[in-house]
Amino acid sequence: MNDFLNYFSLNVDLAVEARDIVRGKSNIEVSGVEEEVENLENIDITTITIMNEEAASVMGKPMGTYVTIESPPLKINNPYVKEEIITAMSKSLTNMVPNIAPDSTILLVGLGNWHATPDALGPKFIEYSPITRHYHQYAPQALVEGMRPSCGIAPGVLGVTGLETFEVIKGIVEKVNPAMIVVVDALAAQNVDRIGTTIQMSNTGIQPGAGIGNNRHALNQEGLGVPVIAIGCPTIVNAAVIANQAIKNFCLDSGAMYNENQSTEAIKTTLSHFGGSLSVTPKEIDDIVENTSRIMAMGVGHFLFPGISTEQLELYAI
Amino acid sequence: MNDFLNYFSLNVDLAVEARDIVRGKSNIEVSGVEEEVENLENIDITTITIMNEEAASVMGKPMGTYVTIESPPLKINNPYVKEEIITAMSKSLTNMVPNIAPDSTILLVGLGNWHATPDALGPKFIEYSPITRHYHQYAPQALVEGMRPSCGIAPGVLGVTGLETFEVIKGIVEKVNPAMIVVVDALAAQNVDRIGTTIQMSNTGIQPGAGIGNNRHALNQEGLGVPVIAIGCPTIVNAAVIANQAIKNFCLDSGAMYNENQSTEAIKTTLSHFGGSLSVTPKEIDDIVENTSRIMAMGVGHFLFPGISTEQLELYAI
Amino acid sequence: MNDFLNYFSLNVDLAVEARDIVRGKSNIEVSGVEEEVENLENIDITTITIMNEEAASVMGKPMGTYVTIESPPLKINNPYVKEEIITAMSKSLTNMVPNIAPDSTILLVGLGNWHATPDALGPKFIEYSPITRHYHQYAPQALVEGMRPSCGIAPGVLGVTGLETFEVIKGIVEKVNPAMIVVVDALAAQNVDRIGTTIQMSNTGIQPGAGIGNNRHALNQEGLGVPVIAIGCPTIVNAAVIANQAIKNFCLDSGAMYNENQSTEAIKTTLSHFGGSLSVTPKEIDDIVENTSRIMAMGVGHFLFPGISTEQLELYAI
Amino acid sequence: MNDFLNYFSLNVDLAVEARDIVRGKSNIEVSGVEEEVENLENIDITTITIMNEEAASVMGKPMGTYVTIESPPLKINNPYVKEEIITAMSKSLTNMVPNIAPDSTILLVGLGNWHATPDALGPKFIEYSPITRHYHQYAPQALVEGMRPSCGIAPGVLGVTGLETFEVIKGIVEKVNPAMIVVVDALAAQNVDRIGTTIQMSNTGIQPGAGIGNNRHALNQEGLGVPVIAIGCPTIVNAAVIANQAIKNFCLDSGAMYNENQSTEAIKTTLSHFGGSLSVTPKEIDDIVENTSRIMAMGVGHFLFPGISTEQLELYAI
Repeated sequence: MNDFLNYFSLNVDLAVEARDIVRGKSNIEVSGVEEEVENLENIDITTITIMNEEAASVMGKPMGTYVTIESPPLKINNPYVKEEIITAMSKSLTNMVPNIAPDSTILLVGLGNWHATPDALGPKFIEYSPITRHYHQYAPQALVEGMRPSCGIAPGVLGVTGLETFEVIKGIVEKVNPAMIVVVDALAAQNVDRIGTTIQMSNTGIQPGAGIGNNRHALNQEGLGVPVIAIGCPTIVNAAVIANQAIKNFCLDSGAMYNENQSTEAIKTTLSHFGGSLSVTPKEIDDIVENTSRIMAMGVGHFLFPGISTEQLELYAI
Repeated sequence: MNDFLNYFSLNVDLAVEARDIVRGKSNIEVSGVEEEVENLENIDITTITIMNEEAASVMGKPMGTYVTIESPPLKINNPYVKEEIITAMSKSLTNMVPNIAPDSTILLVGLGNWHATPDALGPKFIEYSPITRHYHQYAPQALVEGMRPSCGIAPGVLGVTGLETFEVIKGIVEKVNPAMIVVVDALAAQNVDRIGTTIQMSNTGIQPGAGIGNNRHALNQEGLGVPVIAIGCPTIVNAAVIANQAIKNFCLDSGAMYNENQSTEAIKTTLSHFGGSLSVTPKEIDDIVENTSRIMAMGVGHFLFPGISTEQLELYAI
Repeated sequence: MNDFLNYFSLNVDLAVEARDIVRGKSNIEVSGVEEEVENLENIDITTITIMNEEAASVMGKPMGTYVTIESPPLKINNPYVKEEIITAMSKSLTNMVPNIAPDSTILLVGLGNWHATPDALGPKFIEYSPITRHYHQYAPQALVEGMRPSCGIAPGVLGVTGLETFEVIKGIVEKVNPAMIVVVDALAAQNVDRIGTTIQMSNTGIQPGAGIGNNRHALNQEGLGVPVIAIGCPTIVNAAVIANQAIKNFCLDSGAMYNENQSTEAIKTTLSHFGGSLSVTPKEIDDIVENTSRIMAMGVGHFLFPGISTEQLELYAI
Repeated sequence: MNDFLNYFSLNVDLAVEARDIVRGKSNIEVSGVEEEVENLENIDITTITIMNEEAASVMGKPMGTYVTIESPPLKINNPYVKEEIITAMSKSLTNMVPNIAPDSTILLVGLGNWHATPDALGPKFIEYSPITRHYHQYAPQALVEGMRPSCGIAPGVLGVTGLETFEVIKGIVEKVNPAMIVVVDALAAQNVDRIGTTIQMSNTGIQPGAGIGNNRHALNQEGLGVPVIAIGCPTIVNAAVIANQAIKNFCLDSGAMYNENQSTEAIKTTLSHFGGSLSVTPKEIDDIVENTSRIMAMGVGHFLFPGISTEQLELYAI
């Protein structure tokens, strides 16, 4: 499978998918990787902990805790399920992060490109997030008792700004001195069913190149000097992944023998106009991004501002 | 192949694809279907004419002329290729339509949903199209000599407005009495390579259900009482199409036997969370829609307003 | 004062302002005009009824009932006041309209231009309004028991579409046969304080030219054949109005003699680059339009769908 | 007049207006302020140089050169005038700035709020500007020979991000080390005629509080350590300014005696609901911002990339 992933330059953004790939058909537990599953009414919560560097290397993801909320109805606009997810996010984040002083400053970062719908999840998250830091300095009376300072930026993407995200965020961190950073980004899934239905939260930050090699420019504690929570939701999938899954299913049904190299070749031919690689997104992506970014903003909002109602938090968003 | 199309509810929007499907492997010419190909520097132009009702039934598309401009670089922002496409569109449209008085009113219709990026092609076409009808009544001095009256509407989609497109357009046609209607819509392709690279123009209008059965609500001459030119560009593809193509390629490479039923079953399983059907679009869809809608607006603009420069026409757009 | 209005081509859109202008300094009740005021906690409701054609001619507005909700905090994003306004709108509309069968179809029309912020109130109203007509035909099970069919369109403006609004709406009405039409539009105020703080509802429809002369193209019962409710909120004011008010106040303070002709001349000079006329809007207009269009959509929503919660109604908006 | 400005908290953003105010009726040249006027076909160019600190204090603006391009047709979409303005901007900027190595990096900053139309000038400027820095590192072959590295950011506003603009920009400057910064912002005018018709360019950067007092957080060479070009175009005017102008004209016409205190009082009363201060913008502001931001992006583009055509530069914008 790794050849397949490499050939199509596929990042495995979700820890639950990395686990499945590593386990493969054998389905043996990965050493140094702990897992806990909680099934609630409408959602399932899986907590994967990568305990040591060896496990990190096997999983292709940095050490740390990854909490995944899965809820097929997430992409439906169901107010009741929304509440359940928001509560689960807030609770999981509270458990995941080290103790942070209740009056410390938090920096929210929305990665991605405003001008590309499936990549606008991060910027939209910022738009819907409660921002309070300026009130602390200029209008403290406008705050609800106990609200901490929060600030937020959507730095854009290299192809639009000509600036590396790390350059922008590192610069801001040095001026603002936040106690923690929450980074939100759109993810790629290895399974089309996960688009708009899965939210992953981890305490590892975001490392370009899946944690291997150069760490200097990673949006994590090592790179930025403060704890970094990374939150994401898949909005795209590589067409090769869909095709490969279909070929596997075809082999299973028809008794033909699946062979990864031959599948890779067949998909290369199929997607030859795209250099063999094509990221796709459902045609309903505008709604999916709108819906999930709002839910994520409220999940993070309740984590950062415990005891404040959703209605009140919304008054501090744009 | 028709079972496959039926199972996944696939419309074959492009005549060049319908022809390929009908021909199948045999590659025998379809009786009653004429075809002409012109290769220019950066673009290929294929003209398919469906000559009689029998051929229409075989092709699953109404009688008439379908001109397809194919240009892989269309989705790249290349000014020179743009000009070539705009000129080809204008010329093809001029050849395709019956003689229309140079001072007659034209109604432009941009189908689709503003709020769903891959479906916003039609509304964006309207935004970039020159609109002049109001000047004729209120400020004729603001027109360049010889400009005809043009008007345009993006009626939205049933799921957003609660109104059938036909109801809205028929109502307007009865009030405005245009001499011709140009309808622009986003299409679905049977081949992912066509997204953003192919423009189809036909003199058949648009018929829901591929021309079979109820014609009362079709956006065509029968339904609307005036000639209707339909123009489209693929922006989505069904994931089943990509998967099926990959399975075929896999069978070819591996020597396994392709079987359409088994392929259909395998894809059904792969896409089970989507009821077996999932329309996808490249993640760069925002740029593709922006670029193609502008080109189509100018192609139609030069057809409607011969002798007026692009720069001048743009002054009459929003 | 009428010379002033005429000179600067000022429409008096609000009945409460027309009344003030007619009364003038004398402050005598206008014959044939009845008025009732209700003061609630955060809002004042004024109901003006123009009883006969003579009064209509004096007021420069058609016969009928005009309910005005005034609430300075409307433009503040205060959830409690919002609820009060929504309830008041719903109640006033219920009182104002003739009995309409609970299962009859309602057409919502959002006048104005998407691409001009102060004029986008109507289109945004449609975006936030519950639309159900298509569910009645295609998915009745998705409706809450008792929901009537509603449909909605934002026809754009003449300068963008080349189509008269009346042409578009009349055409749709003939196809859809609604039992009632609700038209929402951005208004001009004669007092800058009213921008974003006043909502007017009337059962008169909307008549270009203030009800005088040609009625054929009016969006009212005479023109469209069904009852038309008109709802509006001021988003612009003519700069001449601000200037004239300031000149009056200056004369009062300084003892100089106010003279309308001289004031008109002075303002003409001041605004000479704009042909003496300049419509302005506060720089916060994006927020004002966003906020008031949402409130209006919910006020109308509760009127059309009694007994359905705001949260549920929002599920039927885009 | 200064009392009037103070009372309504009016910033005099344009040097040509500061000069008029300082000169007052006497119309005597201000010591230490030099001025040069050039009249071209469709535009006038005024260069004001504030030579010393004393003149800076009198003018309320920092020492430096201010070039103002005035062109009433700027707000009209006239392609020919556009070209003239773009050329004049490029030439003025070239004259104004110190010699900068042709391969040095330039940082573009678009101040203001995406979500408030009259304040979106800066962010839109960034959107239309050519950005090349990332190509230098990752795809130099995609650059035209001789293109320098440019990068750009729209940092948002304090009320939306909770971050001081200075914090964001200073952080980025420390990472990117640009040789020069170009900051674009929407301005307030003292004369409504200037909205969308005037472009000011200066080599002084932008200093909050008009150059008086705390300079630590100024977007200028002192604060950021590199030369800062500031470019702006008025998009708003205080309603008090229009009213005061009208009162003056009224006094002139009617023979009443103008008195600034009484005028201030009258305007305070007129605008009492807005705390005596109300910034307004023409209702056509969406078009004005769109048009001027494009022109400014091309004016700066030709300055930064001499010899590259507008058409080519546009390929490097978003």
